[in-house]
Amino acid sequence: MNINPDQQLLLQTLKAITPLDRFSMEQAKMRMDRLAKPPGSLGKLEEIAIRIAGMTGKVKNTIRQKTIIVLCSDNGVVKEGVSSAPQSVTLAQTINFTKGITGVAVLAEHCGAELMIIDVGINARFSHPKVMDQKIRLATSNIAEGPAMSRTEARRAIAIGIEAARKAIAEGADLLGVGEMGIGNTTTSSAVLTALTNCTLNDSVGRGGGISNETYLHKKEIIAKALAINSPDPTDPIDVLAKVGGFDIAAMAGVYLGAAALRVPVVIDGFISIVAALVAARLSPTCAAYMLGSHCSYEIGYALAARELGINPMLNMDMRLGEGSGCPLAFSIVEAALCVMDKMATFEEAEINDEYLAKISDDWF
Amino acid sequence: MNINPDQQLLLQTLKAITPLDRFSMEQAKMRMDRLAKPPGSLGKLEEIAIRIAGMTGKVKNTIRQKTIIVLCSDNGVVKEGVSSAPQSVTLAQTINFTKGITGVAVLAEHCGAELMIIDVGINARFSHPKVMDQKIRLATSNIAEGPAMSRTEARRAIAIGIEAARKAIAEGADLLGVGEMGIGNTTTSSAVLTALTNCTLNDSVGRGGGISNETYLHKKEIIAKALAINSPDPTDPIDVLAKVGGFDIAAMAGVYLGAAALRVPVVIDGFISIVAALVAARLSPTCAAYMLGSHCSYEIGYALAARELGINPMLNMDMRLGEGSGCPLAFSIVEAALCVMDKMATFEEAEINDEYLAKISDDWF
Repeated sequence: MNINPDQQLLLQTLKAITPLDRFSMEQAKMRMDRLAKPPGSLGKLEEIAIRIAGMTGKVKNTIRQKTIIVLCSDNGVVKEGVSSAPQSVTLAQTINFTKGITGVAVLAEHCGAELMIIDVGINARFSHPKVMDQKIRLATSNIAEGPAMSRTEARRAIAIGIEAARKAIAEGADLLGVGEMGIGNTTTSSAVLTALTNCTLNDSVGRGGGISNETYLHKKEIIAKALAINSPDPTDPIDVLAKVGGFDIAAMAGVYLGAAALRVPVVIDGFISIVAALVAARLSPTCAAYMLGSHCSYEIGYALAARELGINPMLNMDMRLGEGSGCPLAFSIVEAALCVMDKMATFEEAEINDEYLAKISDDWF
Repeated sequence: MNINPDQQLLLQTLKAITPLDRFSMEQAKMRMDRLAKPPGSLGKLEEIAIRIAGMTGKVKNTIRQKTIIVLCSDNGVVKEGVSSAPQSVTLAQTINFTKGITGVAVLAEHCGAELMIIDVGINARFSHPKVMDQKIRLATSNIAEGPAMSRTEARRAIAIGIEAARKAIAEGADLLGVGEMGIGNTTTSSAVLTALTNCTLNDSVGRGGGISNETYLHKKEIIAKALAINSPDPTDPIDVLAKVGGFDIAAMAGVYLGAAALRVPVVIDGFISIVAALVAARLSPTCAAYMLGSHCSYEIGYALAARELGINPMLNMDMRLGEGSGCPLAFSIVEAALCVMDKMATFEEAEINDEYLAKISDDWF
């Protein structure tokens, strides 16, 4: 069988994704329980630090560089009038990422994170020194009329994501985030989520901010039509991506896979980001162990995807901007978690003796 | 009527607490809605930035100094065996705060916050250059036998908290957090919460980590006994503090009042911190507008107190350490919120024109 380089990269990446290291996690858990606090009382901070120990193989970890990979592309389905913002906003905001003035850019700068901005299919010919040109083509096709892209293109998009994660990590990143920009991508994300989980459209399609009843019903009809026309195979995540997804979602799925293959923690942003995470987890269930949820998006489908992935996010901010804007907020929590493991005193160091160590109770709040 | 200096300070502080400035908040809301994002899509980040504008009177704000005020004291009720950790842990951990090795100390250092550590009633004679000596006496009395303290002592504790907030702000803090250390203080907090809200003990008393059924039942019995013996007046928050509270809770309530009087935002930590916030809000309902919830504590009573206060915290970390450990995590979110207001581009600046401004939809995620 002849396989192309993208197939080869995907197979090699899937093979490289292995479970968290149990021994390091046990060591980390032992240290965490010896820290001067009631065991478990730092909740998710403890879980995060222990999980990262399982990724790196080291009990103590520090983050040297944080990078949010932002995948930008356009969606043919916007022709159906599911999005009220014009398609040109995808390009405009992609350029604005480079200027540091969008939501994710401002928040990333605040927390000291880098942005890696990648064009995987923006519907405009342009070049910009701070936007990596990985354009597959000028937008996907309209999913209400046929598949968004070919299977070859879907694999290309995933490969772009894997390569982006590898590049970011090679350049020093040890904590990644996954964001996007693409008018119409809640429609494609809802279609992918519905195809993968066989849920109802009421569970996967959101109303977001200010959408009218009419537009909401129309959006659901278009998604139903796309699923009916394309019949994506729920057991074949690449088929689902190709038929009702987008270049952004496919490439984002690749980032999760690429990060997991190199044992680097990767933070999920909102709805589109978690749908891409679910695609990655369907390609490699082991991959999910490397994912950290940031915030519980206001968009309705987030909750379903989070349940499917077993993700319980840290933040509850009623956010629904996308772009990767939840990642910087989570980065500072992740760093705080690693700091606890690194710097808190053990009971011995805290000169608190064994007598009550066994008796620590809920009263020590 | 003769009133003592503490009464005078309290009255003066309550009088100084005025509502948020509506005009500044409207200006802030207008700017927030002009930023290049769907209106409301940054959720609580927007709310926080707008609320702080209402405190300072300025649309754009930056935090120069963050201080967590940690009130430390002992509780006579530990004689009843409600706490498995010995009382000496209060002193040990208070000293450990100064060494930067406890949970809150490590997290505060990570986010660049100062700790102000105050002894309001630790059961030990000691002096330490980094612990402010405001000891009222060596621990409260046992609430299962009578009142924790006199009304005069309760007012003294509140005054200590007010003065601490004023001092921290005078020294440059423009964002405060409220923490504590005191073995036995979930028992007193549950008693105060029950007295103030007339809730059932099942809603106010937590099991925490590792508490046995037996200890849990005993803790509830002791709280029921304390409430029966003391009959605190639910309409008189100072009476509630004096009869079933602690020096720490009373002083923490004072910090909230002192911060609000000087229009400085103040972050609530976990269960004990939010019970103190509720006491402050009962003394001055206007005070609650200056409070920001950090995380939803794992301790059961937190949810009830949060509902009473209308607080919807940012973080969901399953934490239950106390000390003020949730505050540093929230500080970085608050700073991110102010950064959005300060640095994100408006639609005009983002060169996104008016045509679709009116049409921004949920699709732009």
